[in-house]
Amino acid sequence: MKNSLEGFAIDHLGVAVKSVAAAKKFYELLGLPVLGEEVVEHEQVRVAMVPLGESRIELLEPTSDNSVIARFLAKRGEGLHHVALSVPDLASTIERLKREGTRFVTEEIKIGAGGHLYVFVHPSSTGGVLVELVEDPPQGV
Amino acid sequence: MKNSLEGFAIDHLGVAVKSVAAAKKFYELLGLPVLGEEVVEHEQVRVAMVPLGESRIELLEPTSDNSVIARFLAKRGEGLHHVALSVPDLASTIERLKREGTRFVTEEIKIGAGGHLYVFVHPSSTGGVLVELVEDPPQGV
Repeated sequence: MKNSLEGFAIDHLGVAVKSVAAAKKFYELLGLPVLGEEVVEHEQVRVAMVPLGESRIELLEPTSDNSVIARFLAKRGEGLHHVALSVPDLASTIERLKREGTRFVTEEIKIGAGGHLYVFVHPSSTGGVLVELVEDPPQGV
Repeated sequence: MKNSLEGFAIDHLGVAVKSVAAAKKFYELLGLPVLGEEVVEHEQVRVAMVPLGESRIELLEPTSDNSVIARFLAKRGEGLHHVALSVPDLASTIERLKREGTRFVTEEIKIGAGGHLYVFVHPSSTGGVLVELVEDPPQGV
């Protein structure tokens, strides 16, 4: 299906799991690589990435009982935590959404590890899905 | 991220919503088209599709209290229902997964509306996500 607009894509899916070691087995059985396993200290998670076409699945295992992912697991069990969508112009997108009353988890744009910009939209505005909106950093900067 | 293997992709995300008319507003505000709204009688759902790069989001609204989506909404509320992954060879993938003890929702391969083949893997084998494995029909047949 290629009638999508330029600049939009599913960037990644974040899946909350009790154990990356256990959850990654399914993806390995599919024949997919599981890459870049590392602990992200400030988010208190162990992350492993499964690249899938232009997207990826991120397996997120809590390294502390206080992490966002640990609280999600306690409340909902394992499963999809968020869907990250790439958008072509994050700042103007947020402005437009705010004008229409969209609810955000935090309203400021944050800067991620790779220099990308991101913000989280509250599930109450999206049909029950925690949506992360992402804009990639400018190329060659 | 283009180190994925050939033939793998996120085909679509299925999102269970109470109302397609309400849920699609968020995607329209993002600037995305919402296409192909129709009722799929045998699944008792109203579906609308949001194309996103090589993937799409499917908004699924129950048209009967007995549908799978209505039961999901009653139990979990709105949110992600399943993740559909394209795989290059569904039959051999299923064989390999079964050998390793992967649990399926139904074990037979089914044929979808567009001629694609699909099967559902149980969340207990995937880190809590209901995963649909999809193989596109051969081109030009």
